[in-house]
Amino acid sequence: MANETHFFSTTPSTREEILEATFYALCEHGYADLTISKIGDHFNKSQSLIYHHYEDKDDLLLDLLEYMLEEFESQVPVSTQSPKAYIYEIVDQIFGDAEGSNAQFSKAVLELRAQTAHNEKYRELFRRSDEFVQKQIALVIREGNEQGVFDVEKPKQAAALFQTVIVGVQGQQTINENNIIGSSKIEFRRYIDQCLISSNE
Amino acid sequence: MANETHFFSTTPSTREEILEATFYALCEHGYADLTISKIGDHFNKSQSLIYHHYEDKDDLLLDLLEYMLEEFESQVPVSTQSPKAYIYEIVDQIFGDAEGSNAQFSKAVLELRAQTAHNEKYRELFRRSDEFVQKQIALVIREGNEQGVFDVEKPKQAAALFQTVIVGVQGQQTINENNIIGSSKIEFRRYIDQCLISSNE
Repeated sequence: MANETHFFSTTPSTREEILEATFYALCEHGYADLTISKIGDHFNKSQSLIYHHYEDKDDLLLDLLEYMLEEFESQVPVSTQSPKAYIYEIVDQIFGDAEGSNAQFSKAVLELRAQTAHNEKYRELFRRSDEFVQKQIALVIREGNEQGVFDVEKPKQAAALFQTVIVGVQGQQTINENNIIGSSKIEFRRYIDQCLISSNE
Repeated sequence: MANETHFFSTTPSTREEILEATFYALCEHGYADLTISKIGDHFNKSQSLIYHHYEDKDDLLLDLLEYMLEEFESQVPVSTQSPKAYIYEIVDQIFGDAEGSNAQFSKAVLELRAQTAHNEKYRELFRRSDEFVQKQIALVIREGNEQGVFDVEKPKQAAALFQTVIVGVQGQQTINENNIIGSSKIEFRRYIDQCLISSNE
């Protein structure tokens, strides 16, 4: 199977091979129609290995979610760039490209986020991840404040809007007609330039 | 059954009674576990009536989605207020209250939006609705421009960010720990004040 997304290892462990198969099966069939057998169709080894590692569908999906969120968290760029270049890089990552691997990732995340309405375990993982991302972005903004590049009274509050926009983009990537995402990105850059960047810059 | 949300009629037709039962069953069980029988548990009349009106679960859910989106579209306030008060009212509606009927609505919408990844019919309905809302908000901003209250070069672009934020809030309402939504709202108001409102105001 082609490694179409960039977040699976090129030398995967069995666990990672199972998770990769689950990811593609989830993208193809959706949460409701997903079965271990359909995951097996994307898995090169014996299907019994999946049952050996996981109790049921949700057990497997929760491990996939944890893996994806860790990858997502690690993508918050750790950079030696200036906070301004850094925040623009975050924006590029948030909005991604509608056709590429970001869209695949968003599709899977959207499916799993919908489970938060009914399952506390999904809710707990997303809550942890959302808070992590918010903290990371607040950190960048604070750093920019200290360097005089940004002038933001409440960095955590600004980071909350970033977090809402991240979720919004993920929810729109399956229906990106009329390029709402592209226009949103330009407008969000305008917000950054007018509401975050210091007027001395 | 108590009419907990404000978008179902108090003198419902049979169709509306079925849709209301479907809404509450969807909120309770989620898309994947939803069955006509579980919908029947929320319906005061004979379950056979549901089969009489709808072919299957998706046929029924698509009609519910259409009904909900029409209600959502009708909630875009048609107002004689000033564009500024009007846009603040839209913000109040977007962010709603995390515990109230908005959260129930968001939960159901999130479940159905996840189906857009796999089902063109859901995608088509959401696309239509997203574009409608974007157009309505662009209209308000244009009106504000004409009255000199707003100073926005690209109203449709600003409306796209509103649309992304709407989807983001819906996706966060099931896991609103740490009040990310509340902070987002204040920051989004800051964006409106600094990026939309004319500096002469």
